[in-house]
Amino acid sequence: MPTILGQNQYGKAENRVVRIVRDGATHHIKDLNVSVSLSGDLDEVHYSGSNANVLPTDTTKNTVFAFAKEHGIDSAEQFGIHLARHFVTSQEAIRRARIRIEEYAWERIDGSAADGSRRTAADAKHSFVRKGQETRLSQVSYDGERWQVISGLKDLTVLNSTDSEFWGYVKDGYTTLKEAYDRILATDVSARWRFNWTDDGQPAPFWEESYEQVRARMLHAFAATYSLSLQQTLYQMGSSVIDGRSEIDEIRFSLPNNHHFLVDLEPFGLKNDNEVYFAADRPYGLIEATVLRDGAQPQIPVDLTNL
Amino acid sequence: MPTILGQNQYGKAENRVVRIVRDGATHHIKDLNVSVSLSGDLDEVHYSGSNANVLPTDTTKNTVFAFAKEHGIDSAEQFGIHLARHFVTSQEAIRRARIRIEEYAWERIDGSAADGSRRTAADAKHSFVRKGQETRLSQVSYDGERWQVISGLKDLTVLNSTDSEFWGYVKDGYTTLKEAYDRILATDVSARWRFNWTDDGQPAPFWEESYEQVRARMLHAFAATYSLSLQQTLYQMGSSVIDGRSEIDEIRFSLPNNHHFLVDLEPFGLKNDNEVYFAADRPYGLIEATVLRDGAQPQIPVDLTNL
Amino acid sequence: MPTILGQNQYGKAENRVVRIVRDGATHHIKDLNVSVSLSGDLDEVHYSGSNANVLPTDTTKNTVFAFAKEHGIDSAEQFGIHLARHFVTSQEAIRRARIRIEEYAWERIDGSAADGSRRTAADAKHSFVRKGQETRLSQVSYDGERWQVISGLKDLTVLNSTDSEFWGYVKDGYTTLKEAYDRILATDVSARWRFNWTDDGQPAPFWEESYEQVRARMLHAFAATYSLSLQQTLYQMGSSVIDGRSEIDEIRFSLPNNHHFLVDLEPFGLKNDNEVYFAADRPYGLIEATVLRDGAQPQIPVDLTNL
Amino acid sequence: MPTILGQNQYGKAENRVVRIVRDGATHHIKDLNVSVSLSGDLDEVHYSGSNANVLPTDTTKNTVFAFAKEHGIDSAEQFGIHLARHFVTSQEAIRRARIRIEEYAWERIDGSAADGSRRTAADAKHSFVRKGQETRLSQVSYDGERWQVISGLKDLTVLNSTDSEFWGYVKDGYTTLKEAYDRILATDVSARWRFNWTDDGQPAPFWEESYEQVRARMLHAFAATYSLSLQQTLYQMGSSVIDGRSEIDEIRFSLPNNHHFLVDLEPFGLKNDNEVYFAADRPYGLIEATVLRDGAQPQIPVDLTNL
Repeated sequence: MPTILGQNQYGKAENRVVRIVRDGATHHIKDLNVSVSLSGDLDEVHYSGSNANVLPTDTTKNTVFAFAKEHGIDSAEQFGIHLARHFVTSQEAIRRARIRIEEYAWERIDGSAADGSRRTAADAKHSFVRKGQETRLSQVSYDGERWQVISGLKDLTVLNSTDSEFWGYVKDGYTTLKEAYDRILATDVSARWRFNWTDDGQPAPFWEESYEQVRARMLHAFAATYSLSLQQTLYQMGSSVIDGRSEIDEIRFSLPNNHHFLVDLEPFGLKNDNEVYFAADRPYGLIEATVLRDGAQPQIPVDLTNL
Repeated sequence: MPTILGQNQYGKAENRVVRIVRDGATHHIKDLNVSVSLSGDLDEVHYSGSNANVLPTDTTKNTVFAFAKEHGIDSAEQFGIHLARHFVTSQEAIRRARIRIEEYAWERIDGSAADGSRRTAADAKHSFVRKGQETRLSQVSYDGERWQVISGLKDLTVLNSTDSEFWGYVKDGYTTLKEAYDRILATDVSARWRFNWTDDGQPAPFWEESYEQVRARMLHAFAATYSLSLQQTLYQMGSSVIDGRSEIDEIRFSLPNNHHFLVDLEPFGLKNDNEVYFAADRPYGLIEATVLRDGAQPQIPVDLTNL
Repeated sequence: MPTILGQNQYGKAENRVVRIVRDGATHHIKDLNVSVSLSGDLDEVHYSGSNANVLPTDTTKNTVFAFAKEHGIDSAEQFGIHLARHFVTSQEAIRRARIRIEEYAWERIDGSAADGSRRTAADAKHSFVRKGQETRLSQVSYDGERWQVISGLKDLTVLNSTDSEFWGYVKDGYTTLKEAYDRILATDVSARWRFNWTDDGQPAPFWEESYEQVRARMLHAFAATYSLSLQQTLYQMGSSVIDGRSEIDEIRFSLPNNHHFLVDLEPFGLKNDNEVYFAADRPYGLIEATVLRDGAQPQIPVDLTNL
Repeated sequence: MPTILGQNQYGKAENRVVRIVRDGATHHIKDLNVSVSLSGDLDEVHYSGSNANVLPTDTTKNTVFAFAKEHGIDSAEQFGIHLARHFVTSQEAIRRARIRIEEYAWERIDGSAADGSRRTAADAKHSFVRKGQETRLSQVSYDGERWQVISGLKDLTVLNSTDSEFWGYVKDGYTTLKEAYDRILATDVSARWRFNWTDDGQPAPFWEESYEQVRARMLHAFAATYSLSLQQTLYQMGSSVIDGRSEIDEIRFSLPNNHHFLVDLEPFGLKNDNEVYFAADRPYGLIEATVLRDGAQPQIPVDLTNL
């Protein structure tokens, strides 16, 4: 046979599960998009079409919904751990499971009446508005022995309206850019961070608190860095996470440089004193890097932040 | 000539203008997407290609950016009024201008340090994170005499996890739906509301405050309505706006019914007590209606909420 | 009651129906996205939540799928006519139905073997690749007496690499654009055309042939027009349809001017002889107009081509 | 320093370059979206913000447009090779360049007149309509010594309306799926294939012809395979490419299983004899695998087909 099968995996992608917990009249909501990917002893389904080792993707979908009932959803990471363990331990042919989850945040609708009249806030207990900011991400991989958990986020759009410069760069025959001493710095943060938890014997991280703290550190570092380059800002964001969160050994970013060009208003007899900008779509700078705890081995794939 | 020209308009669409105001170290940001549409004495450009009456779309773009400096951007509506007045009054061939604006909200990044250390909150003064919830909309039309201002929003996603029923409906030979006595009600609010301000002689509404109040009323009515149909919820949302905001005479909604189907867990020996839902994409119910102040004439086009 | 209900409608949107016809071993495919919108005696569902007159949107969905079997899908327009007639004539409370359909075209996969070996072309008889060019559109409205059928398309992207100029326009204090005597003209055609067929007593148009002919005329007029403005090209496209297709009385276009800017290569010692262009995203010019048969009344809403 | 910098890269993404070649009155068009990514001696820009080794992303953009003039665009792959070589050989700090390119295909507008009248086909020589089917992809990487070229495509949607079964799979406690003996098989092909050309001393592949042949082989294998699983179809598609194209050693696919569910029409007294299907959006099965020439080492990253 001149051709052979390489890495392969399969499963049901984008299962949209919403879990409501009723704590008396007060409801809680978890809103996930879960993708299952399984690999193992699956050569034959590719070579001959025999499905003898194939748990249907429809079954992996059913499992996601059933587990939302059986185990609840404390966090996306914990939910992914339940699922990955199940597939690897219950199916002899499955050697590795990877669960990817997107999570959409909701906040409660303010129950106070808009018209100032007296109202009980009862409605606030089961009424939600989607937060609509970043999408939270997690990826749980399990091979029957060791865990790899990579969490992250995407589409968190941030902007500094000053304290950003760009100068002192290389100039070649294709360089026309003018140096900038006060520019807007804006990006859509896409980041993934890897936990050093790998073993059932270790205590697991507090997934929810960890997420909030990592997010806060990235935002704070973005805001607090006087930036000479987006790379410098990226590194400060990553260092703040690694320095402050002992459960995390590695973080990778893809940061588009969302250009805001100062509009030339001189033809109209106006001076643009860093006031009016054109927000461009494409092209954009794209800055990508991994920041690691000293001594840690990089494991986050180079393109994972682009997915 | 067997064919004739009907309604026509032109201009530059989607001018992405960002305006920074520096109030000492504290910066303020307005982030708009502005589309200009002009009509008037423009038959000849269609018939013969003569541009003698055509102000280039490039010029309408320049005007948007120049006006961001000349007039500032107090509100999207006020900015649209400046622009529409300019085109109609400065160009003899232009009889009518329509300015459509999308606005993206930003909030300040919390300046307190994530690590608890003492820091000045200086960074918070020029650092922003995009709010990323609904997109605010406004449309200003002017014919040289009267104004029409329609504001709105889209993509405000809301959900009630109980207090929604659906039963007592018509059944025909194609009906298989089972009645529901406790379901999730979820929608992405798309709404447009028309101000009764039409004349420069009248005092203009407080655009920013009005927007916040309309939004709060819609959210509150959504949360507070015990719903027997999404139409009923829509009407309550509309009534709350018309009743409470005297500056508004008409509001129109397009509300998709974002179906959340209770998953059948019985095949797995599990009972789903309104806990686990599948969030479906398509198809979706679509409920659309206008709510009017008694005596007002409807002017919002039927499809405007779909745009 | 200080507020009243205005125009309202409801139904199931985006029913994705695929119909296979097996003509022996040769299969045929129709791939539609069908949205149903009903209006009538529906005040009470808004005011009190009574669903006594409401045929569920779920039932309208079922009807779409059942009719694909009962009536087949000869054309999107004919399928919409079946549906609209059914809802209006079978439900006393429903006075008007509007069916919107998107259609996706497929072409057969070439059955000849890539390796040149002898093969029967049997596979080509049930194997398809999505054409992936424009989306075909149709909208059928019925009030129990008269029909209105509006067909159209969107996302048909065309480009002339020469024979386009733009000069002789108005210059005001915000004009900086230089005149162009040889530019790229490119647009994504969005068009809707109205048939003059309104009555069951009249012979219906040949919907499929009409679509192909209208599309061919628009493409040909785009290519054949030496353009002094995109408005002129639009009018030529519209006139060609009205002149050549007696079944159509009105056509409306929304044509974005997809700017292709000649890149300034002089800083690099290079001459750009209309060779290298930057294809910009936003902003873009937007040209919209209706072309009518002389004597016809315009009925296509101004924003329909934007939907 | 407790944190260190890992893999990093930067450049300008999504440069939209359109190149027109005028061969007398006959024009030719190449329409690309080019993303540049550079890495090398760039630690300092991350640690201190020094840009001393940083060629600005703006310069990489300028280079893309200048090279479209200087070298022309014979193929996306050849254009990427020119760019990658330039950055690595001209900038001492740059050790590796990766160029990613999307290509959009155009076809000529048929110049024959829609009305059957005599017309010269002159217009067809510079008039194009975007093909709008798959997007062609290429990625060229260079480290100063060896080349890696990975080409591919995405969004090529195909469907077999019969000759697909799915049965004989594993059943566990979460399995409810019924076996299928005649189903629709549909997918959006995303594929990347790696050339074994790595060295300037070797003759380069004929990039354009190779692309057409790979595409034809994938389509043909999809159509010709009587499928017992999507994995089997995938493997046949991959084998056909490796077997038939000696310049390619490895190919990877991500194939979503675009579910078309047979609609249950029995409640309406109708029999659905594989005629009416509901095309579902989410969830979908996702089948991913690499097919290799025997003896070749896999180099295409597992997630590249998802990008």
